[in-house]
Amino acid sequence: MSGGTIHGVGLGPGAQDLMCVRADRLIRNARHIAYFRKRGRSGHARSIVEGMLRADAVEYPMEYPVTTEIPLSDPRYNDLLSTFYADCTAHLDGLSARGEDVVVLCEGDPFFYGSFMHLHSRLAAPVKIVPGITGMSGAWTASGTPISWGDDVLTVLMATLSEEELTRRIRDSHALVVMKIGRNLPRLRRAVEAAGKQDSAWLVEYATMADQRITPLTEATDVTAYFSILLVHGQGRRP
Amino acid sequence: MSGGTIHGVGLGPGAQDLMCVRADRLIRNARHIAYFRKRGRSGHARSIVEGMLRADAVEYPMEYPVTTEIPLSDPRYNDLLSTFYADCTAHLDGLSARGEDVVVLCEGDPFFYGSFMHLHSRLAAPVKIVPGITGMSGAWTASGTPISWGDDVLTVLMATLSEEELTRRIRDSHALVVMKIGRNLPRLRRAVEAAGKQDSAWLVEYATMADQRITPLTEATDVTAYFSILLVHGQGRRP
Repeated sequence: MSGGTIHGVGLGPGAQDLMCVRADRLIRNARHIAYFRKRGRSGHARSIVEGMLRADAVEYPMEYPVTTEIPLSDPRYNDLLSTFYADCTAHLDGLSARGEDVVVLCEGDPFFYGSFMHLHSRLAAPVKIVPGITGMSGAWTASGTPISWGDDVLTVLMATLSEEELTRRIRDSHALVVMKIGRNLPRLRRAVEAAGKQDSAWLVEYATMADQRITPLTEATDVTAYFSILLVHGQGRRP
Repeated sequence: MSGGTIHGVGLGPGAQDLMCVRADRLIRNARHIAYFRKRGRSGHARSIVEGMLRADAVEYPMEYPVTTEIPLSDPRYNDLLSTFYADCTAHLDGLSARGEDVVVLCEGDPFFYGSFMHLHSRLAAPVKIVPGITGMSGAWTASGTPISWGDDVLTVLMATLSEEELTRRIRDSHALVVMKIGRNLPRLRRAVEAAGKQDSAWLVEYATMADQRITPLTEATDVTAYFSILLVHGQGRRP
């Protein structure tokens, strides 16, 4: 099939000039722009591109029917999300069938724990991906310290894992990144302590953005921003 | 101290338009450009910015005294590299002291297993870092498949680790990235097989560049490009 192309475009960690040149051009020229957001919010992805869109750009906000109101383990969560992604996909495939290209804004990198992946796996339309600087790159850059040296093993964990698994894997890593923290911070903190790494762990919030904040984990409160990432820097071999 | 700023600037995975807008501007305006290269080569970082530099840009190629001719375990390797980094740092600090800003070109992301880190830890001059899209993001984008979903644990390994450690960690990961492959490919291949993941492992060479190539590990020959990355895609939870 020919049809318009759906571009999954990485925005990077948040600062507008940290998106890549290819993404910048696609976004400034796009006639159709789509992005996820929480219901009732303007949307973080949309806010990153503020001032960049064509005056005649048509926006398609995709509003999550649920974010954290229903636990992941509840089967209704899966049903609601699955229907939602199918609806979004149908809309984008419809635009493509009419020959329209669409830019889908993706925070960070589209193929790294990204929401766009749920559309990508369903779309019939041609898709192209533009990678982005990950949120974790933004975080370690903000920390002012390299994340990994020499033979360091870097582990990327989601704070949604069990405390036991978090502890085991944190203990077994040289360099560490933890994402999806939010309300899981108390459990994550216990796991970091059990692994004996509490004195080298940093919490980075809103990396590369105006309200960027870097706090030693030992001084962090239990309420943290959605855009928070925990880092333990590797100390590997170096000449 | 005031002095000129040394900018460690991430170039991304290789395609010129995959560097971020901030990097693009700094490179096009730079009066002083520095980059690492292997002796006798034009240098990969330099080739990425071909056509972007000011006509009056002053270039400072930093030529490795040794790359793979001496094993890492030989103490001479450490001495040679340490002296080399100190010399480069002295030159850059000298430029800064004269009030000059310098852009140091960094493949991928400067703080992720980057050579610039060895200057960063030695420089007295003010330093600013511009993150970049990592080579691994370039690789999974080239593969056309997301690297990690839901609660997937992503492990980043260097193929320079022992076969035993590679095997153990490959077995224990959901999503996997292996870098620094080169002549370590036969050992890496044995480790992937011992971990039972040979049928889901892909070798990505020259991701995002003109000669990009993606090969199932089972079909790859034992000679691989320097810019090769092994991927095993995560298969985590998704609605």
